[in-house]
Parts: sequence; structure tokens; C-alpha cells
Amino acid sequence: MSAVSLLGEITEVGRDGRRGGYSRHVFDRAEGELRTWFAEQARRRGLDVETDRNGNMWAWWGTPDAGAVVTGSHLDSVPGGGAFDGPLGVVSALDAVDSLRTQGFQPRRPIAVVVFAEEEGGRFGVPCLGSRLLTGQLDADKARALRDPDGVTFAEAAARAGIDHERFGRDDESLSRIGTFVELHVEQGQGMFALDAPVAVGSTVLAHGRWRFTFTGQGNHAGTTLMADRRDPMLPAASLVTAARRIGSKIEGARATVGRLVPRPGGTNVIPTAVDVWLDARVGSNECLLPMVGEIAGIAEAAAAREGCAVRIAKESYGGEVSFDGSLREELVSLLGGVPVLPTGAGHDAAILSTHVPAAMLYVRNPTGVSHSPEEFAEDDDVLRGAEALARVLEHLST
Amino acid sequence: MSAVSLLGEITEVGRDGRRGGYSRHVFDRAEGELRTWFAEQARRRGLDVETDRNGNMWAWWGTPDAGAVVTGSHLDSVPGGGAFDGPLGVVSALDAVDSLRTQGFQPRRPIAVVVFAEEEGGRFGVPCLGSRLLTGQLDADKARALRDPDGVTFAEAAARAGIDHERFGRDDESLSRIGTFVELHVEQGQGMFALDAPVAVGSTVLAHGRWRFTFTGQGNHAGTTLMADRRDPMLPAASLVTAARRIGSKIEGARATVGRLVPRPGGTNVIPTAVDVWLDARVGSNECLLPMVGEIAGIAEAAAAREGCAVRIAKESYGGEVSFDGSLREELVSLLGGVPVLPTGAGHDAAILSTHVPAAMLYVRNPTGVSHSPEEFAEDDDVLRGAEALARVLEHLST
Repeated sequence: MSAVSLLGEITEVGRDGRRGGYSRHVFDRAEGELRTWFAEQARRRGLDVETDRNGNMWAWWGTPDAGAVVTGSHLDSVPGGGAFDGPLGVVSALDAVDSLRTQGFQPRRPIAVVVFAEEEGGRFGVPCLGSRLLTGQLDADKARALRDPDGVTFAEAAARAGIDHERFGRDDESLSRIGTFVELHVEQGQGMFALDAPVAVGSTVLAHGRWRFTFTGQGNHAGTTLMADRRDPMLPAASLVTAARRIGSKIEGARATVGRLVPRPGGTNVIPTAVDVWLDARVGSNECLLPMVGEIAGIAEAAAAREGCAVRIAKESYGGEVSFDGSLREELVSLLGGVPVLPTGAGHDAAILSTHVPAAMLYVRNPTGVSHSPEEFAEDDDVLRGAEALARVLEHLST
Repeated sequence: MSAVSLLGEITEVGRDGRRGGYSRHVFDRAEGELRTWFAEQARRRGLDVETDRNGNMWAWWGTPDAGAVVTGSHLDSVPGGGAFDGPLGVVSALDAVDSLRTQGFQPRRPIAVVVFAEEEGGRFGVPCLGSRLLTGQLDADKARALRDPDGVTFAEAAARAGIDHERFGRDDESLSRIGTFVELHVEQGQGMFALDAPVAVGSTVLAHGRWRFTFTGQGNHAGTTLMADRRDPMLPAASLVTAARRIGSKIEGARATVGRLVPRPGGTNVIPTAVDVWLDARVGSNECLLPMVGEIAGIAEAAAAREGCAVRIAKESYGGEVSFDGSLREELVSLLGGVPVLPTGAGHDAAILSTHVPAAMLYVRNPTGVSHSPEEFAEDDDVLRGAEALARVLEHLST
């Protein structure tokens, strides 16, 4: 079954009528429906399905064992996200398995299709939650205690999805089976469009972290409180937004973004008591990221002090710069006929796994260049070429 | 039954565990529970309860007729609001009725206790929705189409509460009965604390409006989109916050507040597609309000243009400056032994009604000065003194 047809099967799951696009958050109704759908697709193909200790799903062609060739991505989305970020890697993997079987290919190493949990951090704030737990890069107790916007903990959400959170944590058994990991993903930029290339191979991923700033002032009435008497946390929150832009723009290759900002209580006629602001910061080298965030934080702290507000800063996630395995990368470029090699600013489970096993990324052209938005796009022809490329890679690696 | 005991009966209704304080929004579960409670309180006192065409509740002592002395307030709150703003006026009215009856008082004019719908505009954005509909200051079709944050229209919410929205609109029958309207309210400021006065009478209410700014840019990935390529609506939203503070501070007696700001989709790793920002602006004279908002809007529009964003500005509500009836005010000050007279920046249903009937406000001391926040407060003694003052006012006006 082609990747295009498979995407067509899930096109109605988790549509977000308010924001546009899709909202599929780990262990919610929509993501749960996609998990059930994935398990059913795997069973139809005679693949053995298992959910690991950290909520990641695995579908095995062959007996799970060391040296497996693993591919896949995730089925969760950002709020109001696109149709491709995540699902494209999963459906392309199923398509690749189908075409290899049609060709009568017999892998010498087991092949697995994996679906990682909470790659976007869209519900619990920490991206690549499933792969970070698997590799021990995130403490299990910290993960259990993470809360979604409704106050539900990750442990509670997992329990409701039938997953025993007592078993969260580094999973050496699952890790030891992975020989190589390859993730196919829609490009999040227009690099390939400019190069006229439907498929490319990944080189690096920026260092990346998320920080939550909580500004606290004095909630009060918007009509009765004199301007001079205010301690309004919205003012330093606004300073953080403009500081992120200013500092992010002056550092080569950096990105600094405020996409989430929540005043409490959030009433029109109410000076907020507190404002939570999330800063997403990325830059090409580990040495630059913390100083950049420090500079932005310094401006926000000064603005808070001027307003008589307090500020608390919490690092919610952090990942250093990743350079994918050089020899694997060269092998894939050569196998695919000299496709381009591209860096990215986006984090991926492949970047998390790359510190444990040889890992690689394949990208599929996105003519809009837009991602994390309903305008994210890939042409059907490019989707099919991506799945073909992935089939060749799996064939090559499992022979 | 005393106002303090009555407040005690509803102390658990609509508590907001996330924001603190109370979230009681028109026609939601909590406000519905308070409506049921109010109707039951009225019935216990033998008062006839009716809900008018616009969802306001009336409890009548005596036959509804022209020249009635009407008092009351509202039971809805801002999100995460205090215990007094609204309910204090309702429970004090019930307390006043009880004490007049205990004294054997026989009113010559009918007395009514009214509960207005959606005074805060906390759910549908327009404050004093019930009194504006009653007086014809808000078009019924516009009111029907107002949406809450979940997309539910005011018409739908009313229908679910058993109210026929086809009958929304100026209600001359209800209006014609009101001879005088007196609203008792907790002070939203520390003026009376400074004056050592438990009770005061209102003089004026600032001109007040709410504007919704919708900034629209290009939603995209926070990690892959170069800083130079962004059209991020969070930037002009931040400019609006700082402009409101700057312009609001330079105009004598003005207030300009951003308490509600909602990025869409609101993901940490997502440049927003759009940001909605609500501006609450108030000032002492009608002539100053629109130019002040125009100056703030001009700054926001320029910031949007610099970022390649569009901005749409919608006036959600507007009310001119109100000066309460001078002779009624003098009468009450004299009756209550020369209590202070205070202006306020807060809007009230009494200000809406004042354009149709003689209206007055009584204030009760708030030692924190804080309002629209869990820290809003009144001492039990002051609550009782407020209810006593209201009883004397009702007695005087209905004799």
C-alpha cells in the first residue's frame, strides 16, 4: 500500500477545527486512534507489534534482535500542525516494507518500524520524550511528573493509555536491538525546493532548548488600578518577546522564538497575576546556546525588576548539536545517486538516537517550506519517491 | 439571613483550582448553580422569581409595576476572580430585604432584586451584556453571534440554559418598571481604606471600551525558519502591550491594559499564525478615549507592517463616561450620614441603566484594594454595614 494511500486513510483523524490543521497529542483521542490504526496496519502485514516500556510502538519484520535496521518517526503533532511532520516517516516505512516484500526481498537483519511517543512535546512540553526516555536522556521521575495544560501528569496519561509508568526509563533491551536508525521526514524549509531535489540526506541538527519563564506580579482590576500602581507581568513578558527577536537575529544561524504565552487568569479586564512564556532557542554550536539564552533572560529579568515583578526560569528541555554519523551519511548519499546533504534547525528522534547508534535522516521536498502549520506540504510524487528511497536504504542496510 | 452567611453558602461554587479564586461564567455550570441557588433563596422569602427576555433574573417583593426600587448586581466572575465582585451586591440585597421585613417594613413601591447576566464579559467578551440587551444598547443579533473561547455562541449557550434567544433585545416592559436602580459593590481600589470609610456612594464611571486586535503572520517551524524570513505576529502583539502602557501612562487618569493574549496555535516550537490581543482602555472623558486607542493602535499597526503582518481591529464594547444622577446621589449621601463620594474606573450594570433611570452605586470597603483577583476582600463587619446601608436606601426609596 503506497505512502500516499496510507496518509489518505488518516486524513480525518485529529483535525483541529479551531486552529486549522491537526492536533494529535500523545495519548489523546486522536493520537490513540492513530496508534490503533498503526497496530492494525502492522498486523495486516504480519509484523509483530509491541509497545515498549516508554510508550513507543514497534512493528517487527523478523525476530527482534541485535543489529536491526529501524525506521519510523512519530504520529503526534504540534497544536494545529501539518499532515506530514511525523506521519510521513511512518507511512513511508510501511510503504517501503510493502515494496521490498513485493520484490521478494528477504532481509538478513530484522527490520522494525517504530512510532515514538510525544516527539513534538506538544502536550507535556519536552520534545522527543519517548526517545529521551528510551535512551536514558530524561529522568523517569521527571517525565512522570510533567503536566499537560489541564494539569494531567505524563504518568496519569500513560496509565490511562494502558502503559505502566513504573517501567519508564532507559530501556537497554530495546536499545541493544537497534543496529541503525533511519528517519524519513518532510523538509521543514525550502532548501530542497531551491535545489530541485525530491529527496535529501541530513547532516546536522542545531543545539536546542526550551525555557519556561514565569513572570509574577499583582493581579488586579484593569479599570481601577492606576497605571503607576501596577505590577503587571505582561510587560516583562512583552520584553522577552522582543529580546528573543533582537538577540536571536544578531547571532549567525540562531533562532529564538516565543510561540506560547499564557497570561493567568487571562481576562480582558484583569491585570494578570502571572504570565508563562516559553522560549524556544536554537543555534549551531553548544557553546553559543546558553550564553544566548542568558542574554535574553537578562533583559527579561531587568524588565521584570523595573515592573516590580518576579521571574522564575525553568529549563524544560535541552539537546546539544548533533552531527549524524558521517560514514552512514556518505553511504546513503551514494546509494541514492548523489542526493544533496542538508542541515536542519528541527529536532528529531533520530538526533536523540544518534548518540547511541548510527543514525541518519532522509528528507522529502516541501514546496511551501512551511512546517508546524497546515500549509506544510509534499507532492504525491515526492512522497512516493521518498518511500522508494527509504526502501532502497532498508534493503541496503539489512542485506 | 445575613450577607456574610449568604456568601458562606456559595463559597465553594465555581472555585478555580488552576487559576485560584472563582471562575463563574454566564450559563456555565457554576453560574448556573448560583442562579438555581438565587431562585431558591428568593422562593424561601416568598419573592416571585422571573427570568427576563435577556437572561437577567428578577425576584420581586410586591407586584412588579412601574416605579419599582431595584437593587442587585451579578453572579458571574472574571476568570480566577474574587468572591465579592458581583455576589456581594446580590447577597446584600437579600440581607436588606430580610432586615426590612424583620422590622415590619411595608414598602409602598415594589422592590426587586436583580441578577444581571454576563456583567464581566468573561465568557462572551462584552461586559454588561444582560443590561446592554435590556436597554437596547447592544443589538440582539450581534449578541446572539458572540462566541466564547470554545466557539459556542451566546445564542447557543442561552438556549442550553433554557432561554429563548429569539426574544433577546430591548425589553421595554422590564425597563418601564424600574423607578430607581441602586447597585452595591465591593470597592475596586483602596480609596475607602484611605478614608477610613466602610461605605461610600459612587459619582462617575470612566469611559470604557474593549478592542480586539488580531495580528496575522505566517505560522511556521520555530527551528527551521530563519529569523530574517519570519512574519511573526507575536512581535506586533508585544508592541501593543508596551504601547498600551506608554500611552496609557501619559494621559491623566487613563488606564490601558492587555490582560488577555492568545497566540494560535500556541505551540512552544511554532511561530504563531495569528495572535489575538485584547486592549481594555478607559479614561475620564469620552473625547479622550478614542484618540488614546487610536494612538495605541497606530503603534501596533506600524509594528505589524514592519513584521509583514496584517492586523484587524474590532471594537468589542464601548461605553461613554457616566455621571450618576446628582440628586439621587446627594439624597443617599445625606441619608447615610455624609459618607464619601468616589469615582471608579470599573464598569457596572448601574452605569448602563443610568442612561435610562436614576441610578446609584454604594461601595463597600476593600482593604487590599485588589479586585478581579482572589485577593479581593471585604471584612465581615463592612459587609454587614454595607447591607444595613442598602436596607436604609431601599426603605427610603420605597416609602
